[in-house]
Amino acid sequence: LHCCPLGLLALLLLTLGFSRGLQPGPRDDYEESAETERVFAASKYGSLWPLPQKVKISDVSFKLTGVTFRITDAKGSSSGASCSLLQNAYRRYYEYIFGGSRVQHGAEGRRAGPSVLTELQVLIVSADSECERFPAVTSDESYELTVDQPYAVLKAPKVWGALRGLETFSQLVYEDEYGAKSINSTTISDFPRFAHRGILLDTSRHFLPIKVILANLEAMAMNKFNVFHWHIVDDQSFPYMSRTFPHISQQGAYHPYTHVYTPADVKMVIEFGRLRGIRVVPEFDTPGHTQSWGKGQKDLLTPCYSGDKPSGSFGPVNPILNTTYDFMSKFFKEISGVFPDAYVHLGGDEVDFNCWKSNPDIQKFMEQQGFGQDFSKLESFYIQKLLDIVATTQKGYMIWQEVFDNGVKLKPDTVVHVWIGGGANEEMGKVTAAGYTTILSAPWYLDYISYAQDWQKYYKVEPLNFKGTEAQKKLVIGGEACLWGEYVDATNLTPRLWPRASAVGERLWSAVDVTDINDAFSRLSVHRCRMVERGIPAEPLFSSYCPREYKGI
Amino acid sequence: LHCCPLGLLALLLLTLGFSRGLQPGPRDDYEESAETERVFAASKYGSLWPLPQKVKISDVSFKLTGVTFRITDAKGSSSGASCSLLQNAYRRYYEYIFGGSRVQHGAEGRRAGPSVLTELQVLIVSADSECERFPAVTSDESYELTVDQPYAVLKAPKVWGALRGLETFSQLVYEDEYGAKSINSTTISDFPRFAHRGILLDTSRHFLPIKVILANLEAMAMNKFNVFHWHIVDDQSFPYMSRTFPHISQQGAYHPYTHVYTPADVKMVIEFGRLRGIRVVPEFDTPGHTQSWGKGQKDLLTPCYSGDKPSGSFGPVNPILNTTYDFMSKFFKEISGVFPDAYVHLGGDEVDFNCWKSNPDIQKFMEQQGFGQDFSKLESFYIQKLLDIVATTQKGYMIWQEVFDNGVKLKPDTVVHVWIGGGANEEMGKVTAAGYTTILSAPWYLDYISYAQDWQKYYKVEPLNFKGTEAQKKLVIGGEACLWGEYVDATNLTPRLWPRASAVGERLWSAVDVTDINDAFSRLSVHRCRMVERGIPAEPLFSSYCPREYKGI
Repeated sequence: LHCCPLGLLALLLLTLGFSRGLQPGPRDDYEESAETERVFAASKYGSLWPLPQKVKISDVSFKLTGVTFRITDAKGSSSGASCSLLQNAYRRYYEYIFGGSRVQHGAEGRRAGPSVLTELQVLIVSADSECERFPAVTSDESYELTVDQPYAVLKAPKVWGALRGLETFSQLVYEDEYGAKSINSTTISDFPRFAHRGILLDTSRHFLPIKVILANLEAMAMNKFNVFHWHIVDDQSFPYMSRTFPHISQQGAYHPYTHVYTPADVKMVIEFGRLRGIRVVPEFDTPGHTQSWGKGQKDLLTPCYSGDKPSGSFGPVNPILNTTYDFMSKFFKEISGVFPDAYVHLGGDEVDFNCWKSNPDIQKFMEQQGFGQDFSKLESFYIQKLLDIVATTQKGYMIWQEVFDNGVKLKPDTVVHVWIGGGANEEMGKVTAAGYTTILSAPWYLDYISYAQDWQKYYKVEPLNFKGTEAQKKLVIGGEACLWGEYVDATNLTPRLWPRASAVGERLWSAVDVTDINDAFSRLSVHRCRMVERGIPAEPLFSSYCPREYKGI
Repeated sequence: LHCCPLGLLALLLLTLGFSRGLQPGPRDDYEESAETERVFAASKYGSLWPLPQKVKISDVSFKLTGVTFRITDAKGSSSGASCSLLQNAYRRYYEYIFGGSRVQHGAEGRRAGPSVLTELQVLIVSADSECERFPAVTSDESYELTVDQPYAVLKAPKVWGALRGLETFSQLVYEDEYGAKSINSTTISDFPRFAHRGILLDTSRHFLPIKVILANLEAMAMNKFNVFHWHIVDDQSFPYMSRTFPHISQQGAYHPYTHVYTPADVKMVIEFGRLRGIRVVPEFDTPGHTQSWGKGQKDLLTPCYSGDKPSGSFGPVNPILNTTYDFMSKFFKEISGVFPDAYVHLGGDEVDFNCWKSNPDIQKFMEQQGFGQDFSKLESFYIQKLLDIVATTQKGYMIWQEVFDNGVKLKPDTVVHVWIGGGANEEMGKVTAAGYTTILSAPWYLDYISYAQDWQKYYKVEPLNFKGTEAQKKLVIGGEACLWGEYVDATNLTPRLWPRASAVGERLWSAVDVTDINDAFSRLSVHRCRMVERGIPAEPLFSSYCPREYKGI
């Protein structure tokens, strides 16, 4: 990492929230405030988050004004005015940069002086900009950014890198002591350390209004996340409105009209994500976690028995009926059409065997198949058939680690999702030793909350900290922060997720040696105020203030 | 407690969020959802929160419509149309009851049928309704509510009881299966178990915009809290704009314009609270927790020494200068005028002696006074003088427990605030044995968060669970839930406070034997959805849904 910290630091201190109470100063040696855990010092990297791979900031600064500044397609760019993904992004970042301040009318006639930056030119260099495509795990998100006179240049092979670079550019802009937008001469070369950087949201334990999902996709883009893992259904409710099986959400959603995602809603989420370089990977978890499926879909779930008669309650998906697999074929055919991503998450976690054990037909089937009393074999039997079905839809699949642990035969491109805390490192070793790609979530279950700065715990995780060869490490394609929904809904989700998930965002994007917790605290404090300014109610790290506090309640 | 639960229960289930997934039913005997901690069953008390002292609900139900229903002053009431406190409350509760549904035009001509409730008559029986007064710890909040034909009657000695009864009335209204507003024939006789039921908010660690404070006063009224303990200043910032010493907030606030409470702001908060029967008790904590005071007020704080010269940093208020007491006299004279409540909280907690120890002038003073090396004597010296100053302003005072522990001589009407966890019961015993009134906060520090349903922990606290005589128990006048501000600001305060503080609200209002946690879960679940409908982003207790989810993000 290269950097030249400069006069901008004092300005950051002045303008971004820590000029009082926590600044280094005459009181450092006296511990009156026992609660003050950490003295605030501005980072030489300003408020960049996540930190780019290579950063060089000089102390030459330029002004930007809303009247003269433009983001434009560079001459020779393979993506121009017809690429609405880019045009939308230009507007979005223009508004982020100048939204807080009034455009000064009357300044139109003024010529830009030598110290004014008037243009950011965006140059897509690859012949195929991928403007019309969907992002993928293989997407190139790299970019190079030069802020200098006469104009700044953002160069990227694909539109995905341009999106990341625009976010970075916007993070370089700060207000000087007179409130004028300023940016320093800067050179950045950047790319993600991991290709898969995800957030899991759970819309089954609590329904999340579309507005909440979109706001969090916005926040994800601000933190360079690129996968929305949509844990869309589970035991508690089935808000996904299926075209093929509409009765499932009619019976299994919390409410058939107000608590469902229509096909139009799903389409909007996917396009909103695409415009921000975010993949939408839906999870339809089976054979467990399916109570809500059974309300509308007869005979899908296993009838549990109490003694020698059905108890009236139901267990996991019934793995011994042909109708089950007919259903799954049709269902996942629909899913493969609705969700454009190359992957679908098939779950496979936490299957409870008690109901299967109670059912005499299941017992008979076990005997016929020679499974003995090993119900994990029955689970694998089901999963194997499901995976084969999904494979015919031309989708890749992600699965929770149990499926791998049970020895199910997986396609080579399967992504194994490690979630069980305690032993996660060993599991990463095993999965990669078997040649599968993997993502890590075990240390990043953000639904578990605790007092004080737990973001630091998430930040200190090193995903490659397991025993394995270089080849094995390469199979770790990233991770996901999971915010399970038992205790969150629209009222508290967003401040609970941000900026705690931002810690995971930097861990997955930035270089392996970006581990200075004080520097991170400094950058993240300002980054969180920036999210607040952009309308995201990201909670504070510690006692402090934002120049513009959140406007909601 | 008397009650007759009825047909309304099934309707509550149907209309208020738990009809799916968590309802008692055929699946009870099968544990597919290991995460489902508790099966939801409607309470026979519907969604009343906190539970009134005596409740009798019959199964005779009436309809209410926004067109015909009115809240009116009863004939013979001592408080009529000229009492804007009541008129404001009528409007507020009318809107709470009918706000969610459109007024059906065209229904104006219809006569109310026999099963329609058209009026709630409010009768203030005491000659002095106290409409123009401020609420006090001695205020009578009792009321009696009869919902029956031809009209409902709310009878209360004072306006304060009427406010509580209006909230209760609004909680009795539910929607039937066709969405029609309904209420059952009901008789309620109610009064608070404890007179002091407070919420502490901290506007120093983070500034809270006025909008946030007012929203939380609204939520307090919904939970029958009656004291806003405003921990307005502390080390980190001094947002209180003093008329007498304006330079303190100019220097000590996070920002002198955007992060201060002007006299007009303070007045608005006080009146907003008064209209809801909520006292505003400000805390100006000294001699510790005063770093922010020292920025604008020269010589107020003790200069710390490093060896034999001043280090440049400062400690607690300097207790050995006459100027200190001159300042405090003027300052608390202002405070006594600005805040009408009979009490002011003087803090007195967590005084760090290191700086005093380092200062040679302080050492000399200690010697002169014969304090030896016992700096708690110096602390008491200061506090004693401060209390005497405040006593001349005709105010009573509240203080944190250390002041009592240090043996300071207190006025008989002093309220000792017990906050130190571990030994709180013993402390309650000691304080009351010495004859002082006390309030409890130690088990209710809501800034300490943890995973899952910690409201149950707060709910299970019994404030009188200490060894002492009946006379001692009578000295416990209540308690406060404290939400210290290190980790909360406008982005996350409201959902973090509600409904966790609601648990404390019921403990302090309802009868001692109201301890059924399942019944509480049921009522609180619906109560929290009601708060959400009223615009308060109260977080969920567990997997569930509200018919109308929060509209923000």
